[in-house]
Amino acid sequence: MNLTILGCYAATPRTFTNPTSQVLEINNRLFLIDCGEGTQVQLRKNKVKFSAINHIFISHLHGDHFYGLIGLISTFNLLNRNNPLTVYGPVGVKEIIKLQLKLSNSWPQYELNFVELSSNQSEIIFEDDRVIVKTIPLKHRIYTNGFLFNEKPKERKLNVAAVQEYEIETCYYQNIKNGRDITLDDGRIISNELLTFDPPAPKSYAFCSDTVYNEEIVNVIKNVDVLYHESTFLDSEEVLAEKTMHSTAKQAAKIAKLANAKQLVLGHYSTRYTSIDLFKEEAQSVFEEILLSDDGVTFEF
Amino acid sequence: MNLTILGCYAATPRTFTNPTSQVLEINNRLFLIDCGEGTQVQLRKNKVKFSAINHIFISHLHGDHFYGLIGLISTFNLLNRNNPLTVYGPVGVKEIIKLQLKLSNSWPQYELNFVELSSNQSEIIFEDDRVIVKTIPLKHRIYTNGFLFNEKPKERKLNVAAVQEYEIETCYYQNIKNGRDITLDDGRIISNELLTFDPPAPKSYAFCSDTVYNEEIVNVIKNVDVLYHESTFLDSEEVLAEKTMHSTAKQAAKIAKLANAKQLVLGHYSTRYTSIDLFKEEAQSVFEEILLSDDGVTFEF
Repeated sequence: MNLTILGCYAATPRTFTNPTSQVLEINNRLFLIDCGEGTQVQLRKNKVKFSAINHIFISHLHGDHFYGLIGLISTFNLLNRNNPLTVYGPVGVKEIIKLQLKLSNSWPQYELNFVELSSNQSEIIFEDDRVIVKTIPLKHRIYTNGFLFNEKPKERKLNVAAVQEYEIETCYYQNIKNGRDITLDDGRIISNELLTFDPPAPKSYAFCSDTVYNEEIVNVIKNVDVLYHESTFLDSEEVLAEKTMHSTAKQAAKIAKLANAKQLVLGHYSTRYTSIDLFKEEAQSVFEEILLSDDGVTFEF
Repeated sequence: MNLTILGCYAATPRTFTNPTSQVLEINNRLFLIDCGEGTQVQLRKNKVKFSAINHIFISHLHGDHFYGLIGLISTFNLLNRNNPLTVYGPVGVKEIIKLQLKLSNSWPQYELNFVELSSNQSEIIFEDDRVIVKTIPLKHRIYTNGFLFNEKPKERKLNVAAVQEYEIETCYYQNIKNGRDITLDDGRIISNELLTFDPPAPKSYAFCSDTVYNEEIVNVIKNVDVLYHESTFLDSEEVLAEKTMHSTAKQAAKIAKLANAKQLVLGHYSTRYTSIDLFKEEAQSVFEEILLSDDGVTFEF
């Protein structure tokens, strides 16, 4: 699993910082999460193949999280994309995109689908044979979701020495990897545990931005491997954080601790701060495993 | 008069090139023309004061000419802008912007006005004491206007030696600068020509992008000082130019020649070309005074 931060600063794009967007690669699937203005250029700079993006998740309709979406959709079309594209986001995102495509008379030649969200309960919005994506209802000034990405359990690893010892034919190997016991020709049943090793544990990633401090999300993201939680402000701006329905670094750390996350990635920094080092320092007073996101950084998990 | 090119490449923003946007400073007025994605960052990079922008002209609703508008409008609000802002553009631009501001629940606190255009005749859309702006109806795949910016005639220059010779009191100087003749106490009438010099000739700038080769615009832009005319393609792509309703460098030069322009600025280059030098070469086979726009370049006229 790896995570490329295309942009992790709040509010407005600036010369050297970009609004929210990130690319998650998990179990050989690639997802684009949020799409602030300039995301398509950030994708180019970070050498993400446009054709690998088939699913875009939009947390909410504030500009710093989706103003780059219409441009990316248009660019895909100019580059003669063929693959279908699905956009997951709040009700309204479809109307915004469709209106602009209609008025520019440039409806894409590829299939463009929208999954519009309006529930305040966590729900599964994407599932294939490798990954499940659920919403994480967040509390912000407008309707907002985070997204929880779970790898599906991988197949068990074959214990080659064991299957050879029992002289099991190769045609049964896939069944064994799928967890089945095996009945030998002499009637003996060999338990799967003897024939396989545990696969790597499925990984999980939770994206939570933007949100005020909200313990209700802890149940949804419990035991997540990597939590990205917005930390717009430092502790000195705690009152402002609550007023604008954002979080501080320390509050993000509290959520990570309550959720028993393995690692916490901070981001969505207010552009008022000249350095982001203090975010890590303040968060580590609550939770040890802190990573600071920054534009163009890739984390491998 | 000076012109800063924020972006002059067609189609999609890329790592080192930007879609159309430019800042025209004319007679101490500043106008933003088109606003492709990333324009607000280009404004920052080129140190254009956001507060100096009060009028934005949008030629048409293709993404590479206006996808940066919603972000700029939002950023103005985040930066606590007070001045009113007026956007001039095709019918529909207001609906697109309003829909996004409504769904993000972030209507600007400053006064935001729209002047929506739908006429196929040249019309005056802006006028104050210094500048007049007229539309230039263009022919493109969707409804499109260029814009002609004309300085208003400046006041005449006082001939200081002459007014002293006639012992004219200073309280009459403004009348003289305004072109009036003067009656002396002894009844003699002194013609204004004896008391003043000609002011600098008013300057004019025509922005024509995007458009197929169209001689009908020549009448509107006749004798313009500086013509920016799109040159998406080189001569080898003339058929493609007509099909996509764009122009070649040579066609832009033909329009400049027919219009008796003093200078021609080329731009809106297709991103298929690795160098823009050939644009100048081909255009100069028709018209001598060619300037090549490029992102971040400022021309002084």
